[in-house]
Amino acid sequence: MRPEDFTIGILGGGQLAKMSAQEARKLGFSVLVLDPTPGCPASMVAEQIAGSFQDENKIFELAERSDVLTYDIENVNIKALKKIEKEKPVIPSSKTLEIIQDKLIQKKVLKKAKVPVPEFWGLNSIEELEELLPVVQKARKGGYDGRGVAVLRDEKDLDKALPVPSYAEELVDIDKELGVIVARDADGNTEVYPVVEMVFDWRANLLDMLIIPARMDNEITRGAQEIAVKAVEAVDGVGVFGVEMFLSKDGRLLVNELAPRPHNSGHYTIEACTTSQFEQHIRVVADLPLGSAELLTPAVMINLLGSRESRGRPAYLGIREALTIPGVYVHIYGKKRVFPFRKMGHVTVVDRSPERAIEKARRVKSLIKVVGDESEAPRGNNNGK
Amino acid sequence: MRPEDFTIGILGGGQLAKMSAQEARKLGFSVLVLDPTPGCPASMVAEQIAGSFQDENKIFELAERSDVLTYDIENVNIKALKKIEKEKPVIPSSKTLEIIQDKLIQKKVLKKAKVPVPEFWGLNSIEELEELLPVVQKARKGGYDGRGVAVLRDEKDLDKALPVPSYAEELVDIDKELGVIVARDADGNTEVYPVVEMVFDWRANLLDMLIIPARMDNEITRGAQEIAVKAVEAVDGVGVFGVEMFLSKDGRLLVNELAPRPHNSGHYTIEACTTSQFEQHIRVVADLPLGSAELLTPAVMINLLGSRESRGRPAYLGIREALTIPGVYVHIYGKKRVFPFRKMGHVTVVDRSPERAIEKARRVKSLIKVVGDESEAPRGNNNGK
Repeated sequence: MRPEDFTIGILGGGQLAKMSAQEARKLGFSVLVLDPTPGCPASMVAEQIAGSFQDENKIFELAERSDVLTYDIENVNIKALKKIEKEKPVIPSSKTLEIIQDKLIQKKVLKKAKVPVPEFWGLNSIEELEELLPVVQKARKGGYDGRGVAVLRDEKDLDKALPVPSYAEELVDIDKELGVIVARDADGNTEVYPVVEMVFDWRANLLDMLIIPARMDNEITRGAQEIAVKAVEAVDGVGVFGVEMFLSKDGRLLVNELAPRPHNSGHYTIEACTTSQFEQHIRVVADLPLGSAELLTPAVMINLLGSRESRGRPAYLGIREALTIPGVYVHIYGKKRVFPFRKMGHVTVVDRSPERAIEKARRVKSLIKVVGDESEAPRGNNNGK
Repeated sequence: MRPEDFTIGILGGGQLAKMSAQEARKLGFSVLVLDPTPGCPASMVAEQIAGSFQDENKIFELAERSDVLTYDIENVNIKALKKIEKEKPVIPSSKTLEIIQDKLIQKKVLKKAKVPVPEFWGLNSIEELEELLPVVQKARKGGYDGRGVAVLRDEKDLDKALPVPSYAEELVDIDKELGVIVARDADGNTEVYPVVEMVFDWRANLLDMLIIPARMDNEITRGAQEIAVKAVEAVDGVGVFGVEMFLSKDGRLLVNELAPRPHNSGHYTIEACTTSQFEQHIRVVADLPLGSAELLTPAVMINLLGSRESRGRPAYLGIREALTIPGVYVHIYGKKRVFPFRKMGHVTVVDRSPERAIEKARRVKSLIKVVGDESEAPRGNNNGK
């Protein structure tokens, strides 16, 4: 094996690509990323080609200089990937990505493979939603982090309906939102990670805190892991996948979404598992054996989001004090600009005691704030650490 | 804190700089390294200035573009560092480095601070060695990894004497060779790491295997840690230090050498401790609080050295098979050329059971081989993984 002669090409140069590239660099591999933003996070640890994910020529340039292609985003040009696949491995495959990109097709494929999902209905027109209330409307393509999802409880909500090709899903009475990372190699071997409990901040429809392991019976945990593996097999997935699931109040485990890449809900794996999701990603694309997904310690992860009024160049307050707490790991992605609720970094907190881990995470959350130098209502932006 | 506006300048771009830079990148810091070899290991994750460590102009260029200067080697131009220190922090200080660079002065300073060291004598001429046999002759400056040390047991060995400024040390009857990493910040706070037991391959005078924690009584372990902290305080050390010690057969703990930087014997800290020595290094240079040095799991570390006949561009055999073993972490530094016994990477093995960790490490050692494409006696160099 000559790792420096093996180039891993990544479509997308954000924090996911950065963290995968970090693992690739540990093994001595070369990494090349395509991203429209010069100085993207991954460019700290990899070479960057600046260009759009829809630009076929740029994608071909990336492919030509790489030995394998992978991605850290979903919205890539599938036509270009299909052409490349004739010459080079693309992981996950364009076939898998095509299924996942269209959420209605994704649900149909999962249902056919007997993976439990919420009830869903195709829509010929937005008007059909009225009969289905209360219901969740989902854009078929392009949704990310809550965008492309409209929760419609009654007629008043109908003006929130999304004017895009969409479908409808049962409005599940959710007890817990769960995440399971699954890695699967070309031979069909799988490693399934612990189940994480995602606690939501409903105001912004983004993650508040992520607790590992999820606070549930072992039986339900095992059930969630089995379903997650089945979901990845259903889409012929090779690579690392983030499987988002619901535990409904009436006790059903239901798959909500698949992401064909390392996932935000898996960042805790860096410090808390034997093999991080990012190392696993590199192992699969470099055709190396899967590593153990064993959980080594309870953990809590929180995202560092741009604060509500933040704009411009970011500054991170409270880091110094947060770092006095043992078992606190701070990750700052290096994005050059901040805006409200943008994912600028994350913090993972580990502790032998799950309760103490949650306590420490709450403290970290109260300490750290991400502000910007062009904020409209600056709040004593003192550049303190 | 605006990490991207903070540049950490590192003199030296080898694997130590690479691993420190990796930690700096997690926090979003900028990193610049000075190294004579284009495409040095750290250049994968940092910007490189190509140049010599003795070239004042290059060192000034590095300093000008950095907010703080540190290093991953000892043999740097002290005069240049002293000039820079008037304007910018240099960590560790030139004063500390000056003491450490001259091993006789190092020993004198430690002895004065009541840190236990082997007996030692200054030498005015090489002839004085004859009266001291059996004795160890050490070059005052420039020694690294066994070079600059001559073990002289009887008159026959005198022709091995080093023709350089040197001093003499007691030939200690060694029971164990130990390593302790110590981090100390500008306020004098310290974090001391577990004691590691270094098992040597006497043929090459290099490490065979490193076992953590050292197999000794708690009392001796604590004694070693206290002595290590005292040694770093004796040289006014700020930063991360590798303290090499002996446990003699007559039960004395003696300091052998200090390294003013993260140390080979501390690589296990990446996976086995709460805060790796590299993250700790970045915390100190960026004036962040020290992290916990707690040991999370027993571990064994082995170096991946160029095999005896290796030359040219390296290839790594047996990696794939080694990675099937759970708890095996492979690090390949990315050096472009291999030669016999060159440090090309390392592997850390973790396991809840210390005995199993040693077993697994032996297996890994038997699996992995680092060869070169210009070897004189190629041994079926099949580029297998």
